[in-house]
Amino acid sequence: MRAESTNLRIRLPVFVFVAQVTIVALYAAFVTYDDQADARFQNNRTNPMENAVYKDYPIFTDIQVIIFLGFGCLFAFFRLYGFGGMVFNLLTAAFSIQWAILVQGYFQFCHDGKIHLGVINLIYAEFACAVVLISFGAVLGKTSPLQLLVMALLEVPVFAVTEWAVLKYLKINDAGGSILIHLFACYFGLGVTFVLYRPHLNEGHAKANTSYQSDILSLIGTLFLWVFWPSFNSSLTLKGDDQHRAILHTFIGLSASTLTAFALSAMLNKNGKITISDIQNVTLAGGVTVGASVDMMITPAAAYALGMMGCIACMLGYRYLSPFLAQRFKIQDQCGIHNLHGLTGLISSAAGICAILMADEEMYGPSLYEIFSHRAPVEGDPKLHELQILIPGLQPGLGRTAQEQALFQVAAVFSTIGVSTLGGILTGFVLKLPYLAPPSDVFCFDDQLFFEVPPDYDSPLKLNNILTTDDSAA
Amino acid sequence: MRAESTNLRIRLPVFVFVAQVTIVALYAAFVTYDDQADARFQNNRTNPMENAVYKDYPIFTDIQVIIFLGFGCLFAFFRLYGFGGMVFNLLTAAFSIQWAILVQGYFQFCHDGKIHLGVINLIYAEFACAVVLISFGAVLGKTSPLQLLVMALLEVPVFAVTEWAVLKYLKINDAGGSILIHLFACYFGLGVTFVLYRPHLNEGHAKANTSYQSDILSLIGTLFLWVFWPSFNSSLTLKGDDQHRAILHTFIGLSASTLTAFALSAMLNKNGKITISDIQNVTLAGGVTVGASVDMMITPAAAYALGMMGCIACMLGYRYLSPFLAQRFKIQDQCGIHNLHGLTGLISSAAGICAILMADEEMYGPSLYEIFSHRAPVEGDPKLHELQILIPGLQPGLGRTAQEQALFQVAAVFSTIGVSTLGGILTGFVLKLPYLAPPSDVFCFDDQLFFEVPPDYDSPLKLNNILTTDDSAA
Amino acid sequence: MRAESTNLRIRLPVFVFVAQVTIVALYAAFVTYDDQADARFQNNRTNPMENAVYKDYPIFTDIQVIIFLGFGCLFAFFRLYGFGGMVFNLLTAAFSIQWAILVQGYFQFCHDGKIHLGVINLIYAEFACAVVLISFGAVLGKTSPLQLLVMALLEVPVFAVTEWAVLKYLKINDAGGSILIHLFACYFGLGVTFVLYRPHLNEGHAKANTSYQSDILSLIGTLFLWVFWPSFNSSLTLKGDDQHRAILHTFIGLSASTLTAFALSAMLNKNGKITISDIQNVTLAGGVTVGASVDMMITPAAAYALGMMGCIACMLGYRYLSPFLAQRFKIQDQCGIHNLHGLTGLISSAAGICAILMADEEMYGPSLYEIFSHRAPVEGDPKLHELQILIPGLQPGLGRTAQEQALFQVAAVFSTIGVSTLGGILTGFVLKLPYLAPPSDVFCFDDQLFFEVPPDYDSPLKLNNILTTDDSAA
Repeated sequence: MRAESTNLRIRLPVFVFVAQVTIVALYAAFVTYDDQADARFQNNRTNPMENAVYKDYPIFTDIQVIIFLGFGCLFAFFRLYGFGGMVFNLLTAAFSIQWAILVQGYFQFCHDGKIHLGVINLIYAEFACAVVLISFGAVLGKTSPLQLLVMALLEVPVFAVTEWAVLKYLKINDAGGSILIHLFACYFGLGVTFVLYRPHLNEGHAKANTSYQSDILSLIGTLFLWVFWPSFNSSLTLKGDDQHRAILHTFIGLSASTLTAFALSAMLNKNGKITISDIQNVTLAGGVTVGASVDMMITPAAAYALGMMGCIACMLGYRYLSPFLAQRFKIQDQCGIHNLHGLTGLISSAAGICAILMADEEMYGPSLYEIFSHRAPVEGDPKLHELQILIPGLQPGLGRTAQEQALFQVAAVFSTIGVSTLGGILTGFVLKLPYLAPPSDVFCFDDQLFFEVPPDYDSPLKLNNILTTDDSAA
Repeated sequence: MRAESTNLRIRLPVFVFVAQVTIVALYAAFVTYDDQADARFQNNRTNPMENAVYKDYPIFTDIQVIIFLGFGCLFAFFRLYGFGGMVFNLLTAAFSIQWAILVQGYFQFCHDGKIHLGVINLIYAEFACAVVLISFGAVLGKTSPLQLLVMALLEVPVFAVTEWAVLKYLKINDAGGSILIHLFACYFGLGVTFVLYRPHLNEGHAKANTSYQSDILSLIGTLFLWVFWPSFNSSLTLKGDDQHRAILHTFIGLSASTLTAFALSAMLNKNGKITISDIQNVTLAGGVTVGASVDMMITPAAAYALGMMGCIACMLGYRYLSPFLAQRFKIQDQCGIHNLHGLTGLISSAAGICAILMADEEMYGPSLYEIFSHRAPVEGDPKLHELQILIPGLQPGLGRTAQEQALFQVAAVFSTIGVSTLGGILTGFVLKLPYLAPPSDVFCFDDQLFFEVPPDYDSPLKLNNILTTDDSAA
Repeated sequence: MRAESTNLRIRLPVFVFVAQVTIVALYAAFVTYDDQADARFQNNRTNPMENAVYKDYPIFTDIQVIIFLGFGCLFAFFRLYGFGGMVFNLLTAAFSIQWAILVQGYFQFCHDGKIHLGVINLIYAEFACAVVLISFGAVLGKTSPLQLLVMALLEVPVFAVTEWAVLKYLKINDAGGSILIHLFACYFGLGVTFVLYRPHLNEGHAKANTSYQSDILSLIGTLFLWVFWPSFNSSLTLKGDDQHRAILHTFIGLSASTLTAFALSAMLNKNGKITISDIQNVTLAGGVTVGASVDMMITPAAAYALGMMGCIACMLGYRYLSPFLAQRFKIQDQCGIHNLHGLTGLISSAAGICAILMADEEMYGPSLYEIFSHRAPVEGDPKLHELQILIPGLQPGLGRTAQEQALFQVAAVFSTIGVSTLGGILTGFVLKLPYLAPPSDVFCFDDQLFFEVPPDYDSPLKLNNILTTDDSAA
């Protein structure tokens, strides 16, 4: 890595103001309110309490807590990089959401030449933001804020196009986003970190460790994610029993993986003690693993088993796969996103496919054709008419069989992984362009590079030196 | 206490995996979705937006915050036991909820041979979990994670049976759970800690103190509890005006006890300063004290007065009763649950009885027979028919008088205290069985026993030694 | 400042108990339940799920988080004043809300000689509380808890009267409270701090600085405010599309100001680094700036631009105006409330006036006369009848033109600033009365004055001394 200046005084404002002027111009030109937020569309038949905001906003605030407080605290686990973890998360999130509103708006919410904005768009944009933040986990502490903004600038459109194409052409079931969010984010992040490989960091880094306080802070982040994950996984399901099941499965999956994580952590530690980073990360594996089948009739027992399986894979990944990937494949995955989002995402995708193959009318009743809407009979099929008596609003589908739907899921998994890996690698090369202020190896995981820090910020370090000296003197 | 090995490498995984395999088998055999979460029960008359999940989920997330973030931070108040407080809370809570879903399911939600699962069951299970966590407060820092799991394993069924028996046979009013939750949890915990008595701890313990950071962390826990307590107290009331009153009373009671706590804290301190542990605990007394009458027409002024009274009792308990119980009765109540849940629970029960005795139709209108449903006339009574014109859905009751209802409340208080004390004592003896890895006295309140800790975790301690040496040298 | 005793042992309990006895007496005499919380008003046409509590309570909890956790953590930014910031916030908030329930109740919720209490009153009272807490920001660390309680005792009525008079007589549009909350609170606080001027503090204070942990804690407060600010700004709008827009605009304004704050922070720092106090405060400017026009059809682009403008004004205020005010005008504004609430409040007021001047039927449809209810035609005007066909529930208004409404807004701005400044100055003089235990200059920003502190609370300070000595020795 070149010894480049990391002074942000000019380059950060230039990027931000160019971005902001562009965004405000695009907002002015193309963004208007959606019907639910536009005063002109209210008339004497409007019931204000039926406004979509009352369905969407409670979910939105829960996801806000996940994005800003959950990720923010979780990423603050490095002893000397608490500001960086928490504050670059805020910066990246704020920019990603603004940008995603425009990009997703263009692909998904655009008609009459305008992007129509409501709280529902914000929820979609926060999903795009979650994707960027997960990828951020792979390069945490090794990237400048400018690099993070450029990463978001590139990742959001690649994600939005993939999301749009997969939903429009492959038409998959993925309520909890295991494929589109977790797998995409994971392989994009791994692509980036592969290109940004820093050989010296494989030998360990004096600042890449935690303190007692930073560990506790990060645990609080975990707890925020834990508590609100059911909202995340259930936010884009159908309303009613589907959302109800999504909440139950997410909760059950998380509880199961939490217990398993404690057991494995003690079991894999040579002193039989618990490793706190396992609690910070691996406990959450169940939330991802139930994702792809979260709204299906998989039974509570299966959600429990998925939580345990995800946790085992994630834990083994942290212990054995991550060091191996770093040494052999030059993939330095700082927060282990491949374990928490990749391996679990793959298990979740497989579980989703099994659930799809097993889904039949006996298990779901006629709702089968609502949840798996592409299995509904095509327009003109007499079966459609029959079903529409049972479910008045049922839309005609594509008449897919379970096997066909499963094949499309497989196609989505592979194409998502392919596109995201490629996108991540190309983004990695862009991040190596000059002027993006990457930290030198020695200043990785170190707040004093990009922040004015208070005098005591490295006192634990200094203190330990003194204590060590002191101990030897005594 | 025997000097037993505290290595968790084998015993924790064995317990957890046996428990998890059992739980997943029981889930597979006996747990299915309830009508609101089952796709097969949706038909052309189902309005998805009327699914019970929309009534229950907002309350559920608030209680999740209380359980995982509130208790988690509050219990992290020891200087060297932040991991233990926060992380064993997570472990115990996750296990208790899973277990309570099954046990309460068997007693309360079982029909056609199946436990029917919806978000409402999770709310009930989180109440059972709160019971375990309150009891945990009595033995915080003195128990291994394995002991905590065993305690949860035993306490949840004792609680579930008591809850079921009291509600089914005594049929009491206790919306905020002052009797069934707070009194039960308190006396169970005292029973456990009585058996686990450690004489050396009465002389003070070098690690049983706080640091500036741990105190602030614990305060954050207090604030989470403060903010979401109205949701806790109102979650199982009738919908509508009853829930409305429960929220108002809880808020008023908490505000009143908060102010009183500041005043008493300064008054009882010899330097006229505020003691931070009073703010962490005693401010919350009002939330418990209003519990048993939280949905009744007690007037806002009475809720205020109850908040003050609960606070005074709780504060005096911390100052005078807890040391006395520890010295004389071998009851070492680490977090003072007897003050925050026991004394306040008794006051609350008494207030509930008064409110029941004073309740009449003038004060409540015909709703009297909804809130005090056992006072509704029996089937066949002409008064019932009259009332059913005013309140269409009114169920026939038992025709109890106010005095009769009050006597059943008294019976519930005594039987709850009796059963929980006995259950706690027996559980205490089980916790003394071998292989449960209890910490030796010297490693109580110390994270390094069960966790891999970062190098700086005891630096405040070392630092103070240096500073003291330094001061004396200078 | 006199060297007065700061022992709280007698004076704090005396104040609190007198206040509490008075409050409970007033509650008993004058406070009853509102129709939605009173059992007697429920009858066979009542649908419990339509109780107002279900509209109001979710907003109420969000504001609770802002008040107790958001402000609490944000105010804990001083290294040695974490208890003070967080705990005096709790005390002041609890008292302000109790007091505001009574005072606002008298002015706004009183009929038949009784104050009618529901969750909606609590929301109003928490707004009054927010006013007091913002003013508290000006004098943070320089006032005793007793002074804060006296300030709340005086500020709440002045605010309640101003609010009542402005809404009743001037009848302005100010959904987000930029005028009534932010401007009032700011100028009241500046008035108080002007009178409490401490010349020595202009030379800097050894304790008036942050630590790494306190900065992170304060950031968490910022994130709580960030996440829940849309609930705050939208809580008193009309339901439906108005509230929907308020949420969108607040979110957009906050995102915009967040990005701008990062850019300006790096730009204005001589080393091109980010200053963490900018992130803690200036990121939030957009939330205030969109306030006065938050429910209007200002377009998303305008909300974005307002966020940027507010941020620029706020940032420049912190860098250049605050030091100037302290030096020249004896206004020591500890948290810079003039930047975050004053300057932004003025911009917001101006933007609100522009939005009012541009509002017409083309932009709003007939809803114009709901949002700007005073522009609705007067009783008897044939246009009113015409509009009532389009909007059945439309109330007759005052037939104001846009220009007239704008003039009333201007009048409200000036009268609010005038009253609050005067009220603040008078309150400042009251706070100088004897027996209120003001800290001496040297004990400002220092927890050990009013709290029993743990032994390590000033260890960072001591440690730095050692480290410095050590460095020079080495």
